[in-house]
Amino acid sequence: MEKKNKSSKELQNLGKDLVSQIKKGKNPKMKVPQRTINNIVYDKKSNTLKLGNKESTREFFHTGQAKKFLQTVEIAKIIKKELIDTGKHEHLRGIFYMAKRTIPKTNINLVDDQVESDKAIEDLEVITGLSREQLHTSANKMGSVVGKVIIKDGEDAIDWSKLGRGGWSIPSITDEIEFKKVNAKYIIYMEKASIFERLVEDKFWEKNNCILVTSQGQTTRGIRRLLQRLSEEEKLPIYVLTDLDPWGIYIYSVIKYGSIALAHASERLTIPGVKFLGITADDVTNYGLEKHFIKMNEKDLKRLKQISNYQWFKNNKAWQRQFKMLKEFKAKVEIQALSSKGISFISEKYLPEKIKKKEFLD
Amino acid sequence: MEKKNKSSKELQNLGKDLVSQIKKGKNPKMKVPQRTINNIVYDKKSNTLKLGNKESTREFFHTGQAKKFLQTVEIAKIIKKELIDTGKHEHLRGIFYMAKRTIPKTNINLVDDQVESDKAIEDLEVITGLSREQLHTSANKMGSVVGKVIIKDGEDAIDWSKLGRGGWSIPSITDEIEFKKVNAKYIIYMEKASIFERLVEDKFWEKNNCILVTSQGQTTRGIRRLLQRLSEEEKLPIYVLTDLDPWGIYIYSVIKYGSIALAHASERLTIPGVKFLGITADDVTNYGLEKHFIKMNEKDLKRLKQISNYQWFKNNKAWQRQFKMLKEFKAKVEIQALSSKGISFISEKYLPEKIKKKEFLD
Repeated sequence: MEKKNKSSKELQNLGKDLVSQIKKGKNPKMKVPQRTINNIVYDKKSNTLKLGNKESTREFFHTGQAKKFLQTVEIAKIIKKELIDTGKHEHLRGIFYMAKRTIPKTNINLVDDQVESDKAIEDLEVITGLSREQLHTSANKMGSVVGKVIIKDGEDAIDWSKLGRGGWSIPSITDEIEFKKVNAKYIIYMEKASIFERLVEDKFWEKNNCILVTSQGQTTRGIRRLLQRLSEEEKLPIYVLTDLDPWGIYIYSVIKYGSIALAHASERLTIPGVKFLGITADDVTNYGLEKHFIKMNEKDLKRLKQISNYQWFKNNKAWQRQFKMLKEFKAKVEIQALSSKGISFISEKYLPEKIKKKEFLD
Repeated sequence: MEKKNKSSKELQNLGKDLVSQIKKGKNPKMKVPQRTINNIVYDKKSNTLKLGNKESTREFFHTGQAKKFLQTVEIAKIIKKELIDTGKHEHLRGIFYMAKRTIPKTNINLVDDQVESDKAIEDLEVITGLSREQLHTSANKMGSVVGKVIIKDGEDAIDWSKLGRGGWSIPSITDEIEFKKVNAKYIIYMEKASIFERLVEDKFWEKNNCILVTSQGQTTRGIRRLLQRLSEEEKLPIYVLTDLDPWGIYIYSVIKYGSIALAHASERLTIPGVKFLGITADDVTNYGLEKHFIKMNEKDLKRLKQISNYQWFKNNKAWQRQFKMLKEFKAKVEIQALSSKGISFISEKYLPEKIKKKEFLD
């Protein structure tokens, strides 16, 4: 409830400020921190991508800015009135449709494309300092979680250890759940739901006292917040498990360091302590996975080069060694290749061994 | 346990039959029902796509068939020994890696591409009459469910009404869960997880005593089996909710009539009683959604034409009327467009009204 009031108040202040400017006979304007690439900095202290200090001004009486100004104010109104004040949440696409109306006495739509409402929402995030979740705006719902954890979501107490083979379906917004009881030593976050099902069937989480999280593809904000909260509130280490390819490494990179698109939200999304568990280039030789090499194509190789040049990887010797080995391999390896060593090799040998030996990349 | 024995036995019989042929000095062969397009028929009686009666023979001493023969036998062995007999399940990709080994004293891999192991598994399905699930083979894990239902999965009793905003994460195989208590009048299956979250937040399932299921994209086998079982075992009507476009209509078509790729599995996947709830072309005029038209591109229009010519739609007047209207619109409409009428318009007006008036397409 308190959080809700805070968000509501911030938006109200934005409106009040504009009204007061108008009453003073001024051209109403807002200060918007710039989200362009040249205002995104890699903050060595926090080890994350962040926004710099550059700001733009958005004015109402300005032919190039009037529409954007209007969009920002309208979206702020929708979010305050229809979402925060009613306790509801809406997806980006739904907010687009809620905002898509003809400006009275014109033929002009307030927004014609979702990009416009999305940008307005991002602007509101940086103007108010509120996160998208605090603005009651959601993105994708995806992923599952299991483990010896009891949470509270609304009225429901949910025991993640009593959900059979499915697990709890992670909602798009995880800011409002409460951790009631957490009994786990660490978290494994994995790219692939098929590996999650393997580990669940093998009762890996029960035997090893850990939490398993999967996303089916890209890591949603809901999952990133969930992981960040478990890391900060419960001090649990998090290990990332992906394919050995530039795309898997980038999944790890985004969770740990943030992304350019969401640099303004780094504080609420990144998890500097997260570690990469595998598949590593060393695993290939240690576990004899060479015969399951899949040749990298042009796109893979280009992406690998880009990633190896990222500021946060550039001076990281352990990672540069991995990149070098990968470039020599000219090949990638899927996590499922471990099945060739036996269906439960991953849960009986690979994971326990690597975790025991602390074979992580940081 | 009984099911497991049945599957194990069927595979054993296949092996025994081959051994007995060999002992008689014969060239060992298997009869494989054809899964090519010219053996797929639309069965008017059951209203589903099915396999016809054409069979092929696969022989061991045959230059063109020896490898496929070997692949089929090897995959049968892996499935019996590593999966069914151990009670484990594996994804298609994992089975591929389990089968991918070099044939002794050659340089030849048993399988080089997942397509080969996938085909062998499909062949085993039609040879033995066992479903992929009975062969302990899984595909994608996807989707969520909520409602007043208590199921049992392994040792866990899971109450779908006590899972907060997330719901139960549906596993890739839903054949083995038990329905313990089902208190619902109908099921809504929806294409989009964002709509699921809207309905969950509005407590639609509680107020209207129904079950909500979503998939995030294509309908997985796990969801199709779950819906089919709820339809058959609990006699619940199922309503499908998608965008108004050829892709949404095809989602409905696959659930109801089956698909060409899985025609051999129709009996265990299709749900002839399922109805299409919306968005319909009539909704566009009834609810004034014209302003949210999104122009159809070439690909959309081509797909629309294909679908309207499907045998099961061809003589269906109600659907032909829809297709005609869509062709006139030359546009599609997203389900989220309903948000333009108010954030909870879908749960407070659109759905209750349509369901009360029984405005379904069959």
